[in-house]
Amino acid sequence: MNALSEFINRDSFAKHLGIEILEASDGRAKGRMDIKPCHLNSAGTLHGGAIFGFADAVFSAASNSHGTLAMAINVSISYFRAVRSGTLFAEAEEISINPKLATYLIRIMDDKQNIIALFQGTVYKKQTSLEEILGTE
Amino acid sequence: MNALSEFINRDSFAKHLGIEILEASDGRAKGRMDIKPCHLNSAGTLHGGAIFGFADAVFSAASNSHGTLAMAINVSISYFRAVRSGTLFAEAEEISINPKLATYLIRIMDDKQNIIALFQGTVYKKQTSLEEILGTE
Amino acid sequence: MNALSEFINRDSFAKHLGIEILEASDGRAKGRMDIKPCHLNSAGTLHGGAIFGFADAVFSAASNSHGTLAMAINVSISYFRAVRSGTLFAEAEEISINPKLATYLIRIMDDKQNIIALFQGTVYKKQTSLEEILGTE
Amino acid sequence: MNALSEFINRDSFAKHLGIEILEASDGRAKGRMDIKPCHLNSAGTLHGGAIFGFADAVFSAASNSHGTLAMAINVSISYFRAVRSGTLFAEAEEISINPKLATYLIRIMDDKQNIIALFQGTVYKKQTSLEEILGTE
Repeated sequence: MNALSEFINRDSFAKHLGIEILEASDGRAKGRMDIKPCHLNSAGTLHGGAIFGFADAVFSAASNSHGTLAMAINVSISYFRAVRSGTLFAEAEEISINPKLATYLIRIMDDKQNIIALFQGTVYKKQTSLEEILGTE
Repeated sequence: MNALSEFINRDSFAKHLGIEILEASDGRAKGRMDIKPCHLNSAGTLHGGAIFGFADAVFSAASNSHGTLAMAINVSISYFRAVRSGTLFAEAEEISINPKLATYLIRIMDDKQNIIALFQGTVYKKQTSLEEILGTE
Repeated sequence: MNALSEFINRDSFAKHLGIEILEASDGRAKGRMDIKPCHLNSAGTLHGGAIFGFADAVFSAASNSHGTLAMAINVSISYFRAVRSGTLFAEAEEISINPKLATYLIRIMDDKQNIIALFQGTVYKKQTSLEEILGTE
Repeated sequence: MNALSEFINRDSFAKHLGIEILEASDGRAKGRMDIKPCHLNSAGTLHGGAIFGFADAVFSAASNSHGTLAMAINVSISYFRAVRSGTLFAEAEEISINPKLATYLIRIMDDKQNIIALFQGTVYKKQTSLEEILGTE
């Protein structure tokens, strides 16, 4: 298992939500999350925080895929549609990258290809390699 | 227990994260969350999604405190500081409200009064009362 | 000239910045802006406000293209690259639309096809038609 | 005139919009803008881009007030109320600062103390001093 896979596997919060990262490399990533009762809000629909958490895990996989640690500094999310059940899919696109900063767009879809939310996030890129993080934790 | 308290108690996602709403009324709300292993990311610090989820629950408590259903349409969050343990506190302030839309600012602090993140969220206000939601779920 | 074209032509702020809307229909729009001295900031590069103003005019053209008045409620913009001269191009994509709300993504490019900024905006859709606005101003 | 004042005076875009910076120091800044016809949109109300441009100039004054160059990387703005005439006021508060990044909150008010918009912006802090910028432009 390479450093990125091991790094992704160590994401306790993503595990707590049942998020699965399907692929991650070269600034891109895809994930899926089956909607479960623990993801619902008081109105019985998917919680905004669960949608965000899912997108955030895919954002993290994409932004760390270059092998050095990326830390989120800002995210904006817009919500479009209430969902109650089924599976969500998300895909991250790298919009811009320079030695210090990178920005990603994550589209979150339901299993009927409707867009549920749009997530735009920026990371600050540390010099630390993922191997260093894995070795010192 | 009034409708707002019952509505807040039904938030399964907030429970899954161990979030506690300390108070909520008249467009304001406060909450706390003890940091647990399930909140951590791959680098061993508090996950951005956990910080967001916490702030989002406080945002929901504040924006639903007028007694009718509020649905999040947009949120921006900025992160300032990595945290590994302790307790987070968050407080929501109502910045603007009209019959259709309302905007809240949530400040997330650690237990040493450092600001960890700033969350700015807007809701669309439905006509549905919380009682209707509670009765029909 | 149809109502949308007339509506776009009445945008005094867009004229003040020298913005040109190249096309607008069915939730899409394109624009261009030649960089002039009045667009620069204290460091001699294109002002963030000028980039935003440009994108905002294209956002307005796209979101009003369905014939009823759209009012911006929230925008997030990320900046990627400093520019000093040349021409900017922007294109709006409709990400989501329902009877009350719609969200657009606007990509701002320089004349070498580099992405300069990404703008994500949400509007509240009024019932008022553009004809009514044009008639009553 | 000190470097900050001279830096602020060189903002051509702010001048083009008629923005006045009333004070700026130690991470804080205040400004005013009289609403003029060139600030209006197609519906005859203050253009979102003009509100943003005004807030952005105050954001720039606050974020450059420490004496080194600050470059905006991300901004979110929420709009609350349509305005047609009068004077706007804005005030920037420094929410967080570290050697690389800083975040500001700018509240934009009309002349009756109504909040018109809320602007949350993050800058990347360069090592370059304002004196260097002023000398080399």
